Amino acid sequence: MNFKTPKTPAVYVKDKSFRLAAVDPDDITPFKYGPDDKQEASPRLLVLRKRLSELQELLYAEHTRSLLIVLQAMDTGGKDGAIGNLLTGVNPAGVRVASFKAPSVTELNHDFLWRVHPQVPEKGHIGVFNRSHYEDVVITRVHGLIDERTCKQRYRDINNFEEMLTNNGTTVLKFFLHISKEEQAERLQARLDDPSKTWKFDPNDLKERAHWAEYQQAYEEAFQHCSSGDAPWFVIPANQKWARDLAITEIVVAALEDMNPKPPKVKFDPKKIVIE
Amino acid sequence: MNFKTPKTPAVYVKDKSFRLAAVDPDDITPFKYGPDDKQEASPRLLVLRKRLSELQELLYAEHTRSLLIVLQAMDTGGKDGAIGNLLTGVNPAGVRVASFKAPSVTELNHDFLWRVHPQVPEKGHIGVFNRSHYEDVVITRVHGLIDERTCKQRYRDINNFEEMLTNNGTTVLKFFLHISKEEQAERLQARLDDPSKTWKFDPNDLKERAHWAEYQQAYEEAFQHCSSGDAPWFVIPANQKWARDLAITEIVVAALEDMNPKPPKVKFDPKKIVIE
Repeated sequence: MNFKTPKTPAVYVKDKSFRLAAVDPDDITPFKYGPDDKQEASPRLLVLRKRLSELQELLYAEHTRSLLIVLQAMDTGGKDGAIGNLLTGVNPAGVRVASFKAPSVTELNHDFLWRVHPQVPEKGHIGVFNRSHYEDVVITRVHGLIDERTCKQRYRDINNFEEMLTNNGTTVLKFFLHISKEEQAERLQARLDDPSKTWKFDPNDLKERAHWAEYQQAYEEAFQHCSSGDAPWFVIPANQKWARDLAITEIVVAALEDMNPKPPKVKFDPKKIVIE
Repeated sequence: MNFKTPKTPAVYVKDKSFRLAAVDPDDITPFKYGPDDKQEASPRLLVLRKRLSELQELLYAEHTRSLLIVLQAMDTGGKDGAIGNLLTGVNPAGVRVASFKAPSVTELNHDFLWRVHPQVPEKGHIGVFNRSHYEDVVITRVHGLIDERTCKQRYRDINNFEEMLTNNGTTVLKFFLHISKEEQAERLQARLDDPSKTWKFDPNDLKERAHWAEYQQAYEEAFQHCSSGDAPWFVIPANQKWARDLAITEIVVAALEDMNPKPPKVKFDPKKIVIE
C-alpha cells in the first residue's frame, strides 16, 4: 500500500496468494473496544466522519486531484448502507455516486469501459461506484458470457485504465463487502418478513445465490489480478454492519490524509483588496 | 402552488406583480420561536431532516418520479452551504448535484438547454442544480450577450422545458437565496480576513458586484416570467443562514409529502418464498 493502512479487520489484497475463504466475514478483531464493541466504536466513527468532511472540503478547495471509491458485494452485502454511512456529513456538492445496473443495448455495443469512464470523479470530487467495471469480470464469468482468455485480457484492461486514472490524479480505493452465505439468507429473509423492506427483494437474487461458490471464485481471481499499491482491493468483513462502516471510513480517511490536500495559494494580496 | 406551502419567510412568486426589492433579506418572521430563534429552530430542523431522509428513501423505492431543486444566488449567497445543510443525512446514492460553470466552447455550440438536459434527475432521485439554465437569462442579460427578444424567447423555452419535466414525473422547485448588498460585502471581507477561506475569494466577484442592480433586475424579470404552480420560484431571505436552511428544508419536505411516494407493490407472496 502507498499509505499507512489503519488497523481494521479489512484485508488488503497484496498478491496472487490471496484467498477469499481465508477472510472471516465476522472478524472485528482490532475493533474489540470493550464489552459493547458497537457502542464503543461509535465515538471513533464520529471523529472520522468530522475529519472526512474537512478533508473533502480541502480536496474540493485544492481542485487538482480526486478520489474514486469502488464498491462491490454479493446481493444484500450492504453497498447502499455503506455509502450512506460513509458519506453522512460530507457536502453532497463534492460527491457523486454512480450506480451501474445491467448494461443497455447501446452500452453493450461498446467496449466494457465505455460507460464507466464518463462517471469517474472530476477534480476536487469524491466519486463512488456502486458496482463497477468489475461486474464485467465477475457476473459475466459466472454466467459464461466471456471465456477465460477474454477475462484475463479484461484484467489487463482494467489495470491499465486504473493506472491511467492514478497517473492523472485520481486515487483509487476498492472495497469488497464480504458477507457469509448464512448472513445473506438472514438478510433476504428479513426483507421478506418486513413489509417496509419487501420491495427490496428481487426473486432473481435467489438464482444468483445458487451460484454463490462461483461468485466467490470469480471475485477472488479478480482481486488477485487487479489489486496494486496504486489501486488496492480491500476485503471488508461485512457481517457486522458497524464494523464494516468503521473499517471503510478508517481506510478512506487514511488515504485522504496521505493525499494531504491543501487549498491553492491565492494570487493576490487579501490586504490590498477593497470591497465597495 | 400545487402543495400547501409551509409557513416560512420564503416568498412564492405568483405573477408579474412580484418585486424582488419588496423581499427583506433579513426577514425571519414566522421563525420567531423565542429569545434565541436560531437555537429554538434547530430541533425543528432535525425533525425535518429525519423526515426528508425517510421521504427520499420512499421516492427511491417507488422509482417512478423525481425531484429537481434549482438554486440560484448572487456570489456568496450560500448555495454550497444550503445544499450541504439540506442534504445532510440523505443517502448520497439517491442524490446528484450538478454544478454549472461557465459554458465550454462545445456547450456554446449548442442550444442553451443542451448541457442542462442530461443532468436532470433519474427516477427515484433528488437532483440539485447549483446554478442552472437561469444563468442564460441573467448573466447573459446583464452583460448584453443576448437582447430582450432572445431573452423573452428563452423564458418560453425554459417554461416549456420545465413543463415537459413535470409532465414526465419530475417535481421542480426553484430557490433564489436572497442576500443584501451589505451582507455580500461582509461575506467577501470575511473570505479575505480568514486565511482558511481566502481561496474562495475570486477578484472577478467584485466586477460582478458592480452590476448588483442589473442582476437584481434580471433575476426579478426571470422570476416574473418563469414561475408556475408546477415549477415555482421561491425567494428565500438568506442573510440569516439558519433561517435560509430551515425555510428551504420546510418547503422541500412539504413538496415531497405532497408527492407522497410509496414503495411499489411486490408481485410475489413473501410467505411462499423459501431461501435455501
